Amino acid sequence: MRDVAIIGAGMIPFGRRYEDSLLDMLAGASLKALDDAGFGSQSVDALYVANVGAGMLQHQTAIASSLADRLSLLPAAAETIENGPASGSSAVKAGLLGIASGYYETVLVVGGEKMRAGDGAHTTDFASTMTHPQAEYPYGVTMPGLAGMFARLYMDKYNLTAEHLHAVSIKNHEMGALNPYAHFRKPINREEIFDGPQAALRNPIVADPLRLYDLCPTSDGAAALVLSSVDIARRLGRPYVVIAGFGQATDTQTLAERADPTELKAVTLAARQAFAQANLRPSDIHVAELHDAFTILEIAESECVGFFPKGAGGEAALKGQTRLGGSIPINVSGGLKARGHPMGATGVAQIVEIVWQLRHELPENRQVPNAQTGLTLNFGGFANNVLCFILKRAEP
Amino acid sequence: MRDVAIIGAGMIPFGRRYEDSLLDMLAGASLKALDDAGFGSQSVDALYVANVGAGMLQHQTAIASSLADRLSLLPAAAETIENGPASGSSAVKAGLLGIASGYYETVLVVGGEKMRAGDGAHTTDFASTMTHPQAEYPYGVTMPGLAGMFARLYMDKYNLTAEHLHAVSIKNHEMGALNPYAHFRKPINREEIFDGPQAALRNPIVADPLRLYDLCPTSDGAAALVLSSVDIARRLGRPYVVIAGFGQATDTQTLAERADPTELKAVTLAARQAFAQANLRPSDIHVAELHDAFTILEIAESECVGFFPKGAGGEAALKGQTRLGGSIPINVSGGLKARGHPMGATGVAQIVEIVWQLRHELPENRQVPNAQTGLTLNFGGFANNVLCFILKRAEP
Repeated sequence: MRDVAIIGAGMIPFGRRYEDSLLDMLAGASLKALDDAGFGSQSVDALYVANVGAGMLQHQTAIASSLADRLSLLPAAAETIENGPASGSSAVKAGLLGIASGYYETVLVVGGEKMRAGDGAHTTDFASTMTHPQAEYPYGVTMPGLAGMFARLYMDKYNLTAEHLHAVSIKNHEMGALNPYAHFRKPINREEIFDGPQAALRNPIVADPLRLYDLCPTSDGAAALVLSSVDIARRLGRPYVVIAGFGQATDTQTLAERADPTELKAVTLAARQAFAQANLRPSDIHVAELHDAFTILEIAESECVGFFPKGAGGEAALKGQTRLGGSIPINVSGGLKARGHPMGATGVAQIVEIVWQLRHELPENRQVPNAQTGLTLNFGGFANNVLCFILKRAEP
Repeated sequence: MRDVAIIGAGMIPFGRRYEDSLLDMLAGASLKALDDAGFGSQSVDALYVANVGAGMLQHQTAIASSLADRLSLLPAAAETIENGPASGSSAVKAGLLGIASGYYETVLVVGGEKMRAGDGAHTTDFASTMTHPQAEYPYGVTMPGLAGMFARLYMDKYNLTAEHLHAVSIKNHEMGALNPYAHFRKPINREEIFDGPQAALRNPIVADPLRLYDLCPTSDGAAALVLSSVDIARRLGRPYVVIAGFGQATDTQTLAERADPTELKAVTLAARQAFAQANLRPSDIHVAELHDAFTILEIAESECVGFFPKGAGGEAALKGQTRLGGSIPINVSGGLKARGHPMGATGVAQIVEIVWQLRHELPENRQVPNAQTGLTLNFGGFANNVLCFILKRAEP
């Protein structure tokens, strides 16, 4: 099992991209990553595209082959990888295994989604297609609905209040405001959204206890990475990133079937595998990107991954421990909450952010000083397919 | 790069399976392959599901996670792989790289498609979603339409007649009649379909020069394989199959952009790569499964792969060289033409057939005697993403 490096990273701003087709977005992000890797006119051995909705939303299939042609990467191998909201991470995994196996030397991984293709009901329904086709979907449950039920149980169990959730939302909007690739680039005004007399109107209940500002937006966007063998990475003569640990675990599709629905077993397992492979502990991580499609998830995951003891994640967020300058900065990118969550792109974008952090090339107001290690955790379904990566900076 | 074995194979009969859901079919084929591998209650490390249309046709996403739960394979890793009609081969490739990399010891690969979900127009449109979204799809071209244009050029260039195409169709229907998993289990009556006064009615033009009996049907179905390291395969104490060579190549998405549209460059390249890795020549292959969604393709591919010189494939088919007992038996399963073509399943089903051939466990009337080597070639888009596997029998 040989080591795998990340030598190129790029993305296009997430948000409303009505004028771009899905292929436009995938191509745009890909070209940035290829350019970052110094692959001006050089091809790659293989291409993995992460996407969930091309068939349903764009009425297109086989988009990976289409992209290989569009980017003049022929005759590179190409596939589309789908794993719900964790598709991007699964495509990075595909690249990792392709290079680790020795079959490929260089792989382009790109994730993208064009989600703002219909109205809000349409998008909510699209996300719901990952729920159980007999036990959930026909009853009308949505992802925010599942998250609301999870949040209620979790908050009761660990004595969390809305204040704990607000801390996550405020932090991620604040960081998103500093990230030119974020969908939301505006800090939250506490008075307007949480405390003032108009707050309940501006921040209405979506799925009790979750309100609008506990949810990620519906975004268009794409992000890309170039992976290679370490031999190739070394020759580039600049710092690069190594995939030091990888983990993945599945869980029951329905929340109702879990012995304790507040335990995110797949998160715990995936992180444990990644730490074991990397031979690191949670306290060794300098910066993390977690899957905060709902604020409660950032708190729960920060505990399952091992950054805080069970039940202590909410207080940690409230006390600023997950902010830039805290003990473990989480979602300095703005996270799904503010950067946005174009499904296929998210897992790739999480790693793009960590690559930038580990190469120390971000502006001072959002760079974790001297970051050497990073972690990403992505959440497919309602934590029924979770992937975790641990990344390390490497000198040439 | 360590060797990878196939230790389990199974499928469910292809055809009209109105009463089965997509998940039912995937689970049914998976259980047969797991059972064949002797994995009664043992889990696998990872699961790859090949499927194209779950989102568009079944309004479901993240089906790999769903299947992992359904089969009680938790916490096994799970992803869906899509590459149009070559999706099944791409999922086998994913399993191959997963085990070759050392990340996994055992992988379940299952491909399935529920295509007979709407009327014929709906299915034809579904297949057309893999065409170019600007240069082809809006103009109404269909896959049979592209194949018709290709056939006309190819037949003109190499002096082929309808008789050459009939030879493929007759052979594959004859073999399908012997395969209990085939969609069509009835030999073609020459008089009725090709020669008699009613032939033009019973075998109407679909896309000139291709007629109904030149096309594969629209099928439901699923097929599955269990892959493992060779260490595990050896311990089973019975013959198994090794993946000796793999190749994959992409080409332009539109046929019109190719310097010579009759050259299937991606087929030639993918096969060349697979032969190089296996260190074998075309004459070393004992049995092959080619992608005959259209009869003309079996002829063209039999040349590109290297079984016959360019332009000689039609005569070879007519003279029986591709029949059981000929110099290279092709599509003894009945091929896509008669076994059927549930898109996600096809690439997996091709390998299931070769595994059965190489383990010498088929009935005498469709077993290639003492077969030691096999080849599969699968065709995504209109030959814009092609995968080739070379398989070898191994003794424990």
